[in-house]
Amino acid sequence: MTSQGEPQEGLSTLTKVTGPSSWSRVSCPCCVSSRIEPLVLIQLAENVQPITKQWIMSMISAPVKAGGAQLLVHPGEDMKGDMIVVAAPRCTLLRVTEDLGLCKTYQDGNMMAFSFEDRHNFCNIDNMQQFLTLAERQYIVKHELDSMRAMEDQRIPGIPAPKGKLKARESILQKLEKAGVIRNITPLHDQKLLSALGKQWYSHKSLWGQPLDSIHAYFGGTIAYYFSFLDFYTLSLFPPAILGLFITFFLPSANFSNGNKTESKPTLLKQHDGQPSVSSYMVQAVFSMLWSTVFMELWKRRSAALSYHWGTFKLAEQFQEPRPGFHGELSTNPVTGRLEPLFPEWKRRVRIGLVSVPVVGVFLGLVVMGMAGFYFFERLVSGWHKASGSHFTVVLLYLPSIAHILYTNVLGNIYRNVALKLTEAENHREESSFDYHHTTKVLVFTFFNNFAVLFHIAFFKEDLPLLRKRLSSLLIVTQVVNQFTEVVVPFLVDRFLTSADRNLKKDDPEVDHLQAQGSLPAFPGLFAEYIELLVQFGYLSLFSCVYPLTAPLLLLNNLTEIRTDAYKLCKLFNKPFSAPVANMGVWQPAFEVLSFISVMSNCWLLLLSPHVKELTEEAGLSSSKVLVIAVIVEHVLIMVKMILAFMIPDEPDWVRIKREQIEYHSMQALKKQRIMLSCVDDKLPSKA
Amino acid sequence: MTSQGEPQEGLSTLTKVTGPSSWSRVSCPCCVSSRIEPLVLIQLAENVQPITKQWIMSMISAPVKAGGAQLLVHPGEDMKGDMIVVAAPRCTLLRVTEDLGLCKTYQDGNMMAFSFEDRHNFCNIDNMQQFLTLAERQYIVKHELDSMRAMEDQRIPGIPAPKGKLKARESILQKLEKAGVIRNITPLHDQKLLSALGKQWYSHKSLWGQPLDSIHAYFGGTIAYYFSFLDFYTLSLFPPAILGLFITFFLPSANFSNGNKTESKPTLLKQHDGQPSVSSYMVQAVFSMLWSTVFMELWKRRSAALSYHWGTFKLAEQFQEPRPGFHGELSTNPVTGRLEPLFPEWKRRVRIGLVSVPVVGVFLGLVVMGMAGFYFFERLVSGWHKASGSHFTVVLLYLPSIAHILYTNVLGNIYRNVALKLTEAENHREESSFDYHHTTKVLVFTFFNNFAVLFHIAFFKEDLPLLRKRLSSLLIVTQVVNQFTEVVVPFLVDRFLTSADRNLKKDDPEVDHLQAQGSLPAFPGLFAEYIELLVQFGYLSLFSCVYPLTAPLLLLNNLTEIRTDAYKLCKLFNKPFSAPVANMGVWQPAFEVLSFISVMSNCWLLLLSPHVKELTEEAGLSSSKVLVIAVIVEHVLIMVKMILAFMIPDEPDWVRIKREQIEYHSMQALKKQRIMLSCVDDKLPSKA
Repeated sequence: MTSQGEPQEGLSTLTKVTGPSSWSRVSCPCCVSSRIEPLVLIQLAENVQPITKQWIMSMISAPVKAGGAQLLVHPGEDMKGDMIVVAAPRCTLLRVTEDLGLCKTYQDGNMMAFSFEDRHNFCNIDNMQQFLTLAERQYIVKHELDSMRAMEDQRIPGIPAPKGKLKARESILQKLEKAGVIRNITPLHDQKLLSALGKQWYSHKSLWGQPLDSIHAYFGGTIAYYFSFLDFYTLSLFPPAILGLFITFFLPSANFSNGNKTESKPTLLKQHDGQPSVSSYMVQAVFSMLWSTVFMELWKRRSAALSYHWGTFKLAEQFQEPRPGFHGELSTNPVTGRLEPLFPEWKRRVRIGLVSVPVVGVFLGLVVMGMAGFYFFERLVSGWHKASGSHFTVVLLYLPSIAHILYTNVLGNIYRNVALKLTEAENHREESSFDYHHTTKVLVFTFFNNFAVLFHIAFFKEDLPLLRKRLSSLLIVTQVVNQFTEVVVPFLVDRFLTSADRNLKKDDPEVDHLQAQGSLPAFPGLFAEYIELLVQFGYLSLFSCVYPLTAPLLLLNNLTEIRTDAYKLCKLFNKPFSAPVANMGVWQPAFEVLSFISVMSNCWLLLLSPHVKELTEEAGLSSSKVLVIAVIVEHVLIMVKMILAFMIPDEPDWVRIKREQIEYHSMQALKKQRIMLSCVDDKLPSKA
Repeated sequence: MTSQGEPQEGLSTLTKVTGPSSWSRVSCPCCVSSRIEPLVLIQLAENVQPITKQWIMSMISAPVKAGGAQLLVHPGEDMKGDMIVVAAPRCTLLRVTEDLGLCKTYQDGNMMAFSFEDRHNFCNIDNMQQFLTLAERQYIVKHELDSMRAMEDQRIPGIPAPKGKLKARESILQKLEKAGVIRNITPLHDQKLLSALGKQWYSHKSLWGQPLDSIHAYFGGTIAYYFSFLDFYTLSLFPPAILGLFITFFLPSANFSNGNKTESKPTLLKQHDGQPSVSSYMVQAVFSMLWSTVFMELWKRRSAALSYHWGTFKLAEQFQEPRPGFHGELSTNPVTGRLEPLFPEWKRRVRIGLVSVPVVGVFLGLVVMGMAGFYFFERLVSGWHKASGSHFTVVLLYLPSIAHILYTNVLGNIYRNVALKLTEAENHREESSFDYHHTTKVLVFTFFNNFAVLFHIAFFKEDLPLLRKRLSSLLIVTQVVNQFTEVVVPFLVDRFLTSADRNLKKDDPEVDHLQAQGSLPAFPGLFAEYIELLVQFGYLSLFSCVYPLTAPLLLLNNLTEIRTDAYKLCKLFNKPFSAPVANMGVWQPAFEVLSFISVMSNCWLLLLSPHVKELTEEAGLSSSKVLVIAVIVEHVLIMVKMILAFMIPDEPDWVRIKREQIEYHSMQALKKQRIMLSCVDDKLPSKA
């Protein structure tokens, strides 16, 4: 966190060039400052008229009461005139900090929800660069820009009627983006901080440890949570990796005695077709089932500690203004007393239950149908080929695969649109809730797509050797492809791009630097990163007992993944906005659900293993009896996992105590407040 | 609630006789009143010395700071001198109301957590009889008696050393009960209110509706929740009862067409051994699965509304003093700042997970073993009997049953003790949490005991006709036995008891009336009542598809059950203390879990039905394939239930809004408080 303490010269150079006088006026005396920090860059379309730019700038600097954002604005002063640079006055920063429910260090050393009126009792209140992190300041600017609203029906100057018409309470920013006036909004990089962070992070010599606090300060909540989880996950992979290596290399044949599980005749312990012996199978399966629960529970504790540390454990999203896309009957919010659209919860739930879930189910069905069709036609075509054996049928052999890939891609594209539309129709009030439901839909589909083939092999073909082959090739090929696309390509691109950049910078550093930032591609979000981890975790927990090298390979992958992700984020994309969050959202339940599904899959794989089959045949059990026993074992294991999860509290005791303290004090405060109010009224009649 | 408004003459007659001067002095001027309402009766053992009684009375009236209860106390003045009558001064009532976190009507009409300092803004504050219900006042007295603690090591006067030694911070009341000094503590009945309530309740002519608010006011939270649930449950039984009657009487044979489910050959639809046709089977099973979810979700909404209405939705048990049996390292509670024993949460959870759960599991295993042993010996003995056929072996035939009954009873008694010991070892801080875990343990065992035989018939013997026979005899026999023990016996007992009572009363109404109250048996608690409902619900949701008359029979049972329970409670037992609660505790999840287990059981029963067997045989499916299909169907049904449960919000919108309002205001208040405090300090320097 020391990096925040230094004066932000990298950013403030712009101020020196353009001079503080070019910024819009500050109305509030406490916000007047000789140095203004540019935070966010708005890029307009090239054909935007000066009058439109003028209007946008006036709205951004207008007070909140007039529908503005109460921010500082600068015209950018480059040749094209297509930029607006935005900064934030102190009062706006502090007000929004309170609105967001961010916690900051109080004078007694505890984290407390920030209150504007009580600001003088918070630490570092005189230095905004220390009080709020760069990412928080930039998110606040974004938040305020998003909440600009038209106060009445009006027209945007310089834009023709249908596009430029604003209805009362409509979001101005959304309208401008839809109308194509605004091309892009990016938070600005601080080159000095960035290079310091990069040195600590991906150029670091040691293999271990990421500067999580600095990442949080520079990139913000969601991104910091991703890297914290990646860090924790990688560390947690050591035990299964060691076990996997041990099983693969030190137990090559079957002389491994596993106490009471394999005390039957030694002849049974012989290897079957080079696959691990049943005892190591079982050790691996049981270990990975318990490991995944312990891992997730410990991560929850870590996550709770981080959210206290980063001041995001009392976020007050439900008491804020609803997100821009939210619609409903305009009425007074009974809780906060603000005028805003209202939408009943039960309607949303009915839409989720009766529309979204069935539609998602249909798409999952289509994936299954596609796979079934693929197998059907493949068999058909290879039958023809065998029968005729001509060159024409050789070409035909590729047809089912090509058709299936096409089908999957088209389906995926349609589904992405449908998922967005469905989530919009659910009409979530909060941004986080919208993200949650949208990500869930995409995630379920992506996951299903990824695992459909493996499940098919495991549950229908019941072909363990094929599953093992498939799994190892997936792990190795994916890894090589990832390393290439994530490391080599970006590195080359970066070399070319940055060298071009550097030449330009020598001429007119500030303006061109801004332009260079705008020209990078937008950060595609964390979905791809998280789903990669989830799919890996799936390989590990669902199937690792057939291929014990999964964990070591994943460990290797993650160690490089951390660096390449960091490099990508710092160098190759525009800096993304990142909201303060209290956990990693929907990904946490996703990992947990997977860890429970893993019990079923592992039980099933054990059932399929030839050793178990032999054992049951010798014991003379019918196949349905064996199935019933497997179901019972599965339920017992799920019970054990649940007990284990119960025994590890979700938050460390010290976090719980801090949370309860706040709860207790606010309960007390609510009671006191009423009395205090009447007491002040009584004793200070001069007020009236 | 109107009954509270009337002056409580039934109770205050005692005051007239004994005169206010016989009560202990009131220290606080606002609590002085010409009329004192006796609330609780403490019965001492007969051999207690006057000096001990004197000491107890002085402790009860001592201030809280001295370890006392700050209550009013009256020596009782009967011949034997073994009674203490306790009343509560206004200040104590109000202080504890705040401590408990009870909500009362604020001047703006909303329910708000009561605050002593702000008392003048609450409605009815001048009349304790209207402000607090009788049950609440009596519970407050109990609560204060329970929290009497020795301030230092001391001896109870008049009791020999080992029993009479009090350690610092030891609960005085617990010690006195253990030492046998206190025989009994009962809240006093108010005959006038009671007879008015009885008239409304069980002597009521109409079949429907209970005076729930009056029950809550007179008997208190836990009891009111039981009757509310019974009420709601009975009402909810109408749809399945109607369906059951319809299936039984209007679909005697199999010509019932069920759309797409039975479009196969009509020959398949013929009746099998007089059991209902498969289509009605399926209708019944699917209906009861969905019905149970809808029922539980709607009850949750009703429960939330009741808890708001009764002011128990913000109970602050975790911020109160711990329950008397709680032990731990004496330290400052970091949340409230009070000195009290502390015990880490993770230790409790480890004890639950590693000790309690396995031990309970062992006992459940013993139940199963007992049953297996019974069947084994029965087969053995009947084999002998067939072989020899002598009179001696006829007697032997009864041996397995007798042994099994003995075994079950002994096991049950051991288990009850073990469950109590285990829960004590878990060392719960709150009374409600202790009850929750204790009840869970007993409940699981009792339920298992009740259903073991039925499960055995359904899942191992796979004998549906036997299951149907057993179920119908259980339902009918239990009902007849219940009606007899719960209605006829109590009625006869009551006739004899009350007539004896009435003669006595004419002589010296007050004192003998008190004595009569003490002589009734203690109320055995609601466990037996709830478990009866749960077992019934189990019959209905788990097995009703084999015996559609279950629901009508249960409906009939419940309609009488309401009246007999009410009669019992009013007439045949001492009035119980009943804590203010926000829901029906562990019973709610118990019913929910059962409703999910019902999916498995219904799927299994459908699988066993001869019709499905024929169908699968015709389709040529192997038995393990059929099992897999059944498992898939089961999972889909569980999904549907979960979606249904998700779609019905757990609390009505208006309750959610009220709750969020309080949350929002206390968040605001916490911020304001700090400023208010400094503001008052600044503006009122004269204070110093």
